[in-house]
Amino acid sequence: MKIKQPVYAIDNIISDYNDLTVYETVFHNANGYIGVRSNFEEGYPEGIDTIRGSYINGFYDIAEMKQAEKLYGLVEDKQTMLNVVDTQTIYLIIDGEKFSMFEGTVKESKRWLDMEKGITGRYIVWRSPKGKEIEISIKRMTSFTQLSLFTIEYIVKALNFNGNIVFQSYHRGEVQNYSNENDPRAARESSRYLVPAQAVVEEGVSYLTSDTSKSALSVCTGVAHRLSKDSSIVTKLEGHSASTKIDTAIVENESIQLVKYTVFSDSIRHKDCTANAKVEMGKALTVSLETLYQAQFVYLKEYWNNCLLEIKGDDELTEAINYNMYQLIQSVGKDEHCNITAKGLSGEGYEGHYFWDTEMYIEPFFNLTEPSITKNLISFRYKTLDKARENAKILGHAKGALFPWRTIMGTECSGYFPSGTAGYHINGDIAYSVVAYYLVTKDLDFIAEKGAEIIFETARLWMDVGNYSNGTFRINEVTGPDEYTCMVNNNYYTNVSAQYNLRWAYKFYYMLKEAKQLTNIEKLGITEDEVREFERAADLMYLPYDNTLKINPQDDSFLDKKVWDLENTPKEKFPLLLHYHPLHLYRHQVCKQADTVLAHFIFEDAQSMETIRNTFHYYEKVTTHDSSLSTCIFSIMASKLGLIDKAYDYFGDSAKLDLFNTHKNTKDGIHTANMGGNFMAIVYGFGGLRIKENSIYFAPSLPKQWEQYKFQINYEDSQIIVEVNAKETIFTLVKGGSKVIHIYGISYNLEDVVKIALQG
Amino acid sequence: MKIKQPVYAIDNIISDYNDLTVYETVFHNANGYIGVRSNFEEGYPEGIDTIRGSYINGFYDIAEMKQAEKLYGLVEDKQTMLNVVDTQTIYLIIDGEKFSMFEGTVKESKRWLDMEKGITGRYIVWRSPKGKEIEISIKRMTSFTQLSLFTIEYIVKALNFNGNIVFQSYHRGEVQNYSNENDPRAARESSRYLVPAQAVVEEGVSYLTSDTSKSALSVCTGVAHRLSKDSSIVTKLEGHSASTKIDTAIVENESIQLVKYTVFSDSIRHKDCTANAKVEMGKALTVSLETLYQAQFVYLKEYWNNCLLEIKGDDELTEAINYNMYQLIQSVGKDEHCNITAKGLSGEGYEGHYFWDTEMYIEPFFNLTEPSITKNLISFRYKTLDKARENAKILGHAKGALFPWRTIMGTECSGYFPSGTAGYHINGDIAYSVVAYYLVTKDLDFIAEKGAEIIFETARLWMDVGNYSNGTFRINEVTGPDEYTCMVNNNYYTNVSAQYNLRWAYKFYYMLKEAKQLTNIEKLGITEDEVREFERAADLMYLPYDNTLKINPQDDSFLDKKVWDLENTPKEKFPLLLHYHPLHLYRHQVCKQADTVLAHFIFEDAQSMETIRNTFHYYEKVTTHDSSLSTCIFSIMASKLGLIDKAYDYFGDSAKLDLFNTHKNTKDGIHTANMGGNFMAIVYGFGGLRIKENSIYFAPSLPKQWEQYKFQINYEDSQIIVEVNAKETIFTLVKGGSKVIHIYGISYNLEDVVKIALQG
Repeated sequence: MKIKQPVYAIDNIISDYNDLTVYETVFHNANGYIGVRSNFEEGYPEGIDTIRGSYINGFYDIAEMKQAEKLYGLVEDKQTMLNVVDTQTIYLIIDGEKFSMFEGTVKESKRWLDMEKGITGRYIVWRSPKGKEIEISIKRMTSFTQLSLFTIEYIVKALNFNGNIVFQSYHRGEVQNYSNENDPRAARESSRYLVPAQAVVEEGVSYLTSDTSKSALSVCTGVAHRLSKDSSIVTKLEGHSASTKIDTAIVENESIQLVKYTVFSDSIRHKDCTANAKVEMGKALTVSLETLYQAQFVYLKEYWNNCLLEIKGDDELTEAINYNMYQLIQSVGKDEHCNITAKGLSGEGYEGHYFWDTEMYIEPFFNLTEPSITKNLISFRYKTLDKARENAKILGHAKGALFPWRTIMGTECSGYFPSGTAGYHINGDIAYSVVAYYLVTKDLDFIAEKGAEIIFETARLWMDVGNYSNGTFRINEVTGPDEYTCMVNNNYYTNVSAQYNLRWAYKFYYMLKEAKQLTNIEKLGITEDEVREFERAADLMYLPYDNTLKINPQDDSFLDKKVWDLENTPKEKFPLLLHYHPLHLYRHQVCKQADTVLAHFIFEDAQSMETIRNTFHYYEKVTTHDSSLSTCIFSIMASKLGLIDKAYDYFGDSAKLDLFNTHKNTKDGIHTANMGGNFMAIVYGFGGLRIKENSIYFAPSLPKQWEQYKFQINYEDSQIIVEVNAKETIFTLVKGGSKVIHIYGISYNLEDVVKIALQG
Repeated sequence: MKIKQPVYAIDNIISDYNDLTVYETVFHNANGYIGVRSNFEEGYPEGIDTIRGSYINGFYDIAEMKQAEKLYGLVEDKQTMLNVVDTQTIYLIIDGEKFSMFEGTVKESKRWLDMEKGITGRYIVWRSPKGKEIEISIKRMTSFTQLSLFTIEYIVKALNFNGNIVFQSYHRGEVQNYSNENDPRAARESSRYLVPAQAVVEEGVSYLTSDTSKSALSVCTGVAHRLSKDSSIVTKLEGHSASTKIDTAIVENESIQLVKYTVFSDSIRHKDCTANAKVEMGKALTVSLETLYQAQFVYLKEYWNNCLLEIKGDDELTEAINYNMYQLIQSVGKDEHCNITAKGLSGEGYEGHYFWDTEMYIEPFFNLTEPSITKNLISFRYKTLDKARENAKILGHAKGALFPWRTIMGTECSGYFPSGTAGYHINGDIAYSVVAYYLVTKDLDFIAEKGAEIIFETARLWMDVGNYSNGTFRINEVTGPDEYTCMVNNNYYTNVSAQYNLRWAYKFYYMLKEAKQLTNIEKLGITEDEVREFERAADLMYLPYDNTLKINPQDDSFLDKKVWDLENTPKEKFPLLLHYHPLHLYRHQVCKQADTVLAHFIFEDAQSMETIRNTFHYYEKVTTHDSSLSTCIFSIMASKLGLIDKAYDYFGDSAKLDLFNTHKNTKDGIHTANMGGNFMAIVYGFGGLRIKENSIYFAPSLPKQWEQYKFQINYEDSQIIVEVNAKETIFTLVKGGSKVIHIYGISYNLEDVVKIALQG
């Protein structure tokens, strides 16, 4: 399937130096294993801010994180994603003049991303200070079909001269992470994490191997060069770097192509990563670049076939949505050793950590488009279950597992536990995601193999953290999704999510028992008594409800607090977290993001429509949406409540967050959860999709700004296309057996096509 | 008045090296301005732990305290009390053999403190490896009458030889603070804070001046030596140190006396501290040592006259109580530039910070014995009021002042705000202490001058932090005294203390208005409307009460939490804070210390006796007394409830905490608040003393273990001695005009003596 506007391009005559770091993010290349920021090959003059980085998903070192006051169990070190190498650097010298975007005359300059081909590029026409003109075309690719591989194809053409050109290309092993003392979202101190271990040049290919300082890991990168014409290519080692010099003649109108291959390998996946890098390089060099490009195209063709989403009447939005879906496949980990970071592999914000974003904002997208990826993401959590058990012990729990709020390899990396570790809902989120995967795939084998163990161990934790009081089961001293209200009792979201977790623990127990698939979890020693206790706690789960307002309070004390005067808060005081002390925030009714409203989206059957409506209107007034995870949820719920204009407003420009840098921090990386959230706002919001135990539900609506929209989803063995226009909604079964579907609450048998008039 | 057992002495043949640091604390010298730990003059072999320190109250540098995660308003640096100099070191060499407690034979060794004379000492008989025997007598004093002065009188006598002796005495300016990575109560990292500024020797006196690295302060110390016989005294500078060599002959049975004088001066009190040190040294050297000793004795005679406290039937306890009272006068600041630190000037625990201990545990003692000291302590708070106003702004408050949880010069030094800055009750405590001082002295002039401004500004803060809800005034998101339960709503202690603060704000307003003494606070712009609002909030203050248990819950959610199973918690898991994650502690009903029970002591008229009794029994079961501020309060309340055996048990050995190192951390310094608390347990507890607006109240009881006890208090213009024996209580007015006093609820006119039969 072809996507609309597959190429996103910008003119790039540099005007604002601050934009440079933003475009480094926007045009980065990644494939879920490696990510390379889009830095200029030729570099920048001194004093210009740039974040030059190449990253491996799940590859980390340990960084110190001292607590201002030492208390038992507080985290004192964390994992941090490493910038592992610089292989981007290529200087181009024409007759002694070095190409630079900051000297001479840039006559033309474009940067582009082709989302069908999976390639980014630059195109520059440049006139040197001495008047020599060249045309430069650069293409970059991180291969989806050979995850270790990153290529730069660098073509230079002499436009008005005969002369000499030199490529000076580098492979630098001694690199550091970016740091910014003043930005709470970036690391605060730069450290040298990688220790040089080995540097060799074999058959013109340089291999640099480094060890991490504390995490006992190794990384190897290999770099090779191929020139389109015969010329000497001389590679020399200098310390833990290699430099390659190519010196050749060029004549007017001649084009010379240099291809620079980088392969990455690490000791998490390969015991001897140096040996593996050599294998990978061998593999890359045996096929032509064109073949690699072709494989990339084929991979993406399949991807776009699975995630069609088009909006008629807003081409820019369609482009943005496609951009987001492209970033999601670029960012998401492809093996159980990693997950998807808050910033993908595009930057160092949040230090490459994995959050609940994965389960609540990313997996809902992959469930519908590529559920095998969800399976991988859950497998990652499964792999870290022992670490989560240890974490539970640190927190004082006698049993169960508590997943870390932020992590790379499974241990907690939160420095400030009240809005970190205290977010116990991460357990409910992970359990929810297992169920969601099951509901869309009915893959009980995976539940038997991995899912159930997660569900049981998280359920056990709820039993330990909660307590019965006044005939109800209560959960104290936790933090819900809203980080402006911390360490509260009976956070509605947490409790309803724990209830769901406990309910599915006993459901799965009996399903597996019936299917004779309990073998795998026998080691847990789960008994029917214990399962019944899960059921009892779920049944007695206390879900706060306010009789006067007829809403679910966010927690036991939320409504007793002062309402924050948002109307009279000056614009420059947002986001509030950068301008107010946590105690002041916690003392007020003010929300950073959807919390109870999110619970009502995820667990809509727990409350009446009236409660959901009142709750939505109540929280709307006290939510700042300072988090990028918020407006998409409000949009979904506005759709549910029939407030389509409001839904559209919430949806608004948030789809373009990174393309337009609306949060002013795209330089640190893309916002992967927001990207998933925007997909959700269309499919779950305007499309009204819900997947429940007994069936699949739709309740489509159409914003008046759009002529039509169309999306496609996987459900069990089938693929369904939903097309919504001003008149009607058309459901087309494009794959798989017939399905009972619910539209606006009425059930239909979808065998081929079902057409229903648009409501509302 | 003579005190019983004025000399506390121990044999000190070294057996356990760990005791050394404990005795450094126990026998330290201090006078409220300077403190010198009792280190051996001759030093220790390498590898033996020692905390060699000399401190100035209120003198500090700024230390970095990075937060693991940066959030708005979190404290990132703190003040830390400095070890300013080493002038203790004196090596003694007899015929080439250096005296050491760790070589040769220690035939006799004693250490002692004379609390009447204000002097500590050592007495040693030592035989050198080569068989030479000497007797050493050392006396140390920090002068109460010349606060800058510290003296060491060192007398050596040759017992079995004629020969040569050398004193090698040092004055070292390059010193560091003690650090211990593993102890949350000690600083975590050692830094060099002092920068050498000037070193001179003038007329044989060395003066070393140093500047702090960040706080822009200077300190100067001067050291002089006097020998009892003519001999050359040679003082040389080496870097930022001076060494003095005295080489002389000694004959059998001859005693030679060396007196080493140290004066301290600092730029907080004296702009040119070097010049001031010279003046102080001149002053010290013009009088004989005997004259200085005599002045010390006279000062303490007056002190002991004011704080008589004797227990017949327990001499060891009387000694311990006297020790504690001695430590309090040693520790407490004597000017408005300082206060009393948690560890006095005896060690570096809690980094020389001032806490609420001052107001709630120390001032109750000084109010009754030396109220001018309370006045000083309040003046210190008054001096830092502007800093407290700034602190309130950082915390988001539009008006009022919020005193810091821990500080030296007035800014917040809490690294972990949930059990630091969130302890807003510090405001109520300081306001309470102003009222308490007023009630005992009726010093309205001081209220007009300083007290009222504190009361009004703290009252304003309560108005800003609290809010009306359901017809009550509520205070959310604060931490009460119990640090095992943090960031709660409507902590009973905090609310009742805020109520008292607000009530006294309007009381003082009208008292001052009537006395035409409002001039001083006109600048605050307090209006009658505002004062009426204080009154309204106080009247509507929400004080949590549980109808089922008929107790005051510690806060809104305390009773909903799981009860900690204290009975089945192994002994080695105490104190809990060293073994459990804060979230786990916060999630349980478990208290580190008296909280609601403390509120019932301080504000007993807010609740019925039934509520107070039920509350006491309830919290008794869930309190660990992991804080040294706890058992004394439980003892007082047990006394109030007529549970004298229980009161005695709580009182128990806590009076001997530091003498017997029962908390295993006396090495870091004495526990000043505990010392005040023990006094309170007798006078307010067994004696049943309360001072209220309209009168003074007693309700004496006698533990069966005691024959009799006696204490004396100041009240308004009078001094009253209370003697309690098995038969009766005798109240004697020893000074001042007649007073109406209440005994067991009945009022009497005390003109001379009132005798009442003992009840209960």
